[in-house]
Amino acid sequence: MYRTHSCGELNITNVSQEVTLSGWIQKSRDLGGMTFIDLRDRYGITQLVFNMDTNADLCQKARKLGREFVLKISGIVTERESKNAKISTGDIEIIVSEIKILNASKTPPFTIENDTDGGEEIRMKYRYLDLRRNPLKENLMLRNKVGFEVRSYLHGIDFMEVETPYLIKSTPEGARDFVVPSRMNPGTFYALPQSPQTFKQLLMISGYDRYYQLVKCFRDEDLRADRQPEFTQIDCEMSFVEQDDILNTFEGMTKHLFKKIKNVEMSGFPRIKYDDAMRLYGSDKPDIRFGMQFVELNELAQNKGFNVFDSAELVIGICAPGLATYSRKQLDKLVKFVQKPQIGAKGLVYVKYNEDGSFKSSVDKFYSQEDLKAWADKMEAKPGDLMLVLSGDTAHTQNALNVLRLEMGDRLELRDKNTYAPLWVIDFPLLEWNEDSKRYHAMHHPFTAPKPEEMHLLESEPGKVHANAYDLVINGVEIGGGSIRIFDKDIQAQMFKHLGFTDEEAQEQFGFLMEAFEYGAPPHGGIALGFDRLVAMFGGSDSIRDYIAFPKNNSGQDIMISSPSAIADAQLEELFLEVKNIQ
Amino acid sequence: MYRTHSCGELNITNVSQEVTLSGWIQKSRDLGGMTFIDLRDRYGITQLVFNMDTNADLCQKARKLGREFVLKISGIVTERESKNAKISTGDIEIIVSEIKILNASKTPPFTIENDTDGGEEIRMKYRYLDLRRNPLKENLMLRNKVGFEVRSYLHGIDFMEVETPYLIKSTPEGARDFVVPSRMNPGTFYALPQSPQTFKQLLMISGYDRYYQLVKCFRDEDLRADRQPEFTQIDCEMSFVEQDDILNTFEGMTKHLFKKIKNVEMSGFPRIKYDDAMRLYGSDKPDIRFGMQFVELNELAQNKGFNVFDSAELVIGICAPGLATYSRKQLDKLVKFVQKPQIGAKGLVYVKYNEDGSFKSSVDKFYSQEDLKAWADKMEAKPGDLMLVLSGDTAHTQNALNVLRLEMGDRLELRDKNTYAPLWVIDFPLLEWNEDSKRYHAMHHPFTAPKPEEMHLLESEPGKVHANAYDLVINGVEIGGGSIRIFDKDIQAQMFKHLGFTDEEAQEQFGFLMEAFEYGAPPHGGIALGFDRLVAMFGGSDSIRDYIAFPKNNSGQDIMISSPSAIADAQLEELFLEVKNIQ
Repeated sequence: MYRTHSCGELNITNVSQEVTLSGWIQKSRDLGGMTFIDLRDRYGITQLVFNMDTNADLCQKARKLGREFVLKISGIVTERESKNAKISTGDIEIIVSEIKILNASKTPPFTIENDTDGGEEIRMKYRYLDLRRNPLKENLMLRNKVGFEVRSYLHGIDFMEVETPYLIKSTPEGARDFVVPSRMNPGTFYALPQSPQTFKQLLMISGYDRYYQLVKCFRDEDLRADRQPEFTQIDCEMSFVEQDDILNTFEGMTKHLFKKIKNVEMSGFPRIKYDDAMRLYGSDKPDIRFGMQFVELNELAQNKGFNVFDSAELVIGICAPGLATYSRKQLDKLVKFVQKPQIGAKGLVYVKYNEDGSFKSSVDKFYSQEDLKAWADKMEAKPGDLMLVLSGDTAHTQNALNVLRLEMGDRLELRDKNTYAPLWVIDFPLLEWNEDSKRYHAMHHPFTAPKPEEMHLLESEPGKVHANAYDLVINGVEIGGGSIRIFDKDIQAQMFKHLGFTDEEAQEQFGFLMEAFEYGAPPHGGIALGFDRLVAMFGGSDSIRDYIAFPKNNSGQDIMISSPSAIADAQLEELFLEVKNIQ
Repeated sequence: MYRTHSCGELNITNVSQEVTLSGWIQKSRDLGGMTFIDLRDRYGITQLVFNMDTNADLCQKARKLGREFVLKISGIVTERESKNAKISTGDIEIIVSEIKILNASKTPPFTIENDTDGGEEIRMKYRYLDLRRNPLKENLMLRNKVGFEVRSYLHGIDFMEVETPYLIKSTPEGARDFVVPSRMNPGTFYALPQSPQTFKQLLMISGYDRYYQLVKCFRDEDLRADRQPEFTQIDCEMSFVEQDDILNTFEGMTKHLFKKIKNVEMSGFPRIKYDDAMRLYGSDKPDIRFGMQFVELNELAQNKGFNVFDSAELVIGICAPGLATYSRKQLDKLVKFVQKPQIGAKGLVYVKYNEDGSFKSSVDKFYSQEDLKAWADKMEAKPGDLMLVLSGDTAHTQNALNVLRLEMGDRLELRDKNTYAPLWVIDFPLLEWNEDSKRYHAMHHPFTAPKPEEMHLLESEPGKVHANAYDLVINGVEIGGGSIRIFDKDIQAQMFKHLGFTDEEAQEQFGFLMEAFEYGAPPHGGIALGFDRLVAMFGGSDSIRDYIAFPKNNSGQDIMISSPSAIADAQLEELFLEVKNIQ
């Protein structure tokens, strides 16, 4: 028997008991006649004591043990003289009578502490050691807890978890597929799912009514810091529902999670139309922990002789409360900030609303104090505030002011990690025009239903049609999205046509779904939540990688196991494949 | 709003309520002035009534609707005249006032009934329609329930679910991998996991103590009826444990499942050593719902002039109670049965123990009544029983008698579907000799630890070493297996050597694991249960395919979505691959 207790459970009530513990040496300290070892396991840390006076041999032995050695010890639980209130076992220590070294350890390449001295690369190579550190362990325990609560909630309201296949069929729509050559069917390939979209729709056609799955999905995209080639989705679908049914159901789930994970009671989530989100925040994932909404100034600011504004499609501003005290230097820096290539504004107009009621702006040449007072009134600015105004074409200007707004929110400390502001963004456009391919792309995906009341525009003005599509956004992060689906073969065929599919391509790729629509498809809709991102949000972090046990780096590699790697020629031959043309 | 209630919830307490239901037409019947429609959803069936006298238009409309049409109806709940006790809604019906056709349906290619007229192939092509049938729906609901209970139990005893990666590294040990070409790393491949074995061991080295995961695994094997290229495993690992800790933990889980799923209380599971299982049942997965254990007859049966027995390595028999009445014809059929190529016995000796105490056998020429009485005594046969004896080399004879024993068990109706007889088979051999490759293969896998007390034989007589490896067997089906693992680098290296790895190969493929062993690996062990098979067992079936939503056929194809399929040349080019040499 390796242990009678874990390293996290002994306390003052166990004093005088003989116990056996197993774990790792977190650290040891020699204090003259005494040696102390902190023994660690998943559940906590227990202090071990060795005394030169009473057991010199054992104490000598203990002094030779290094960090991360694995021990089994037996001894008596004793009350500590100097207690440690920070840990649950802090009132006691073990007077050790017996040590068994279960395994030795080389000195780890970085310290196994909350703050480690190891760089990113070495910690990825020794991920199994990095996972010993408390912050990562807590992240994965959080992930386990969130996953369990998601399942409990959905199970409780009659959702069935159904596993859909991983070896499916490659389709060119959407992101790039990972493919899997089939040995039994030479020259053909499976694809790994980007999502179980078509399968969950088929399950609705099968009458399964409420489906969910926590499921790995795969996208062969060039990776950014916060993307992984494999990621986990909470994938859901419901039948006989309208948009409100889905929003209410998953608002319920999200509230349940906040209660269980954060002990936070949430009230109803605001619902903002996509067009309004763009107008007020310049983003389809607004951070509404703070206000600072966009105010349109076209009417007030144009035709006063300032050419930059006069020639702009849109003039919009935000009001940063209390920042009229910004110095010239601070303002110049702000101008530089919005001119960075990734933001791309040409310039920034500022207006200080001084405490004495006067205005000082970078465009005093063109605007009188009365003009600026009118801006201030429209922006509901008060003396002491700073107005920041951008102009240009709508899309770029909204985008730039969105970034500036978030920056000002950070500076004003309005984006508190422990405040949560969820909302639904609804009524997304059905299609978006893509300049590169000169065709419409599905804003959500090709199975999203147009709003019935706008169906008549689908032929004539497809770009104007909205969809019953929605995103769940929390603190400026898109946590999930979904839509009411098409369940009529003809509408689906029409959608494929708008997306540039020929009839043959539509048939070849999605014929099975369109055929299924002919056998009694029910109205249905669903949602998919990014599980990695949801957990990271609960953990208060932007980095999903810290919430995945074995993530890949930005080149899609797992450097711990050296994957991907070359395979044997015999394997390639069995698959009828040849590698070629590598530069 | 599509419905106020499901089709499974209305009863006598709802009479007089106005309700709205949505669902599929299961069937309709015109009875003179009345039309009845059974409306179906996931939750049940509700009878709708239309009356020519009171609402002729609506009744006419209802008569035109076909099977599997999707309807939304409103009406009043009414008590039925002739009740149907078989369904929960059988006391009521709905007098319909309004119908909306949500979707039409073509006539399905097979009937959506418990017993369908559709063949295997057509039901696979229209799997989404087959899934509408009650038996398949109940299978998937059972699967959902078993999965949820597995998670609840393991969560309750501090197991953490940790997701391990799907894009890993190909290793030649074990079955054939599915591989995934990496576009970002030209000429290299990921592999899909055959199991998360090395990752779960790394998680133990990370100190995670108790890990589990319900996880898809992949094997590119030639498929048999009951194999799938992707399958689901309940994968578990524990630290600081001995074999007993694991057996007790998963015995606890299995009992929990039997209680929750079948409402069956189980007592302790017998534990049988592998060597004993082979000796007594000729199988490492014995069906112990019935006795009929093997009895060795070498001493009694040899050296009596019967050359077949004299030259045999093993003479073994079973006693089939009460079958002494078998006719010559029945016995001849039994001989033919064991001579089938897949069983491969040369012949079968039978001995009838007649009710009058006399014996009649196929070898009366060689054995006296006293000889046969001695056999009967050893086999604990009683008058009226039939003894069946096989001989030959040990392995083939045990195997043939195992098949015969199961056949006799079936004939005597001793293998009741609703009786459950779980057991642990323990102490498996560590290695097995493979005649084709002329080397040892790991009986379980290369990470299984030799029994410490037999470690000294590992160099000299590796074939004699046993392992702390164990299988969970229920009703003759292997539900899961596992082992205590090696956690010492040198022993792991020695194992790889016995398995024919060069040092370089071991380093190349499993260097990361052996290196991890040097940083404080704890003693650990685990188990993996076949989830598909476990669910099928609870469902009383041998066919895992009926418990998988979208299974593949024996050629690894999903004929519903036509996968696998050719991919675009551009996709191949991006992956630096060429398909070639297909005959």
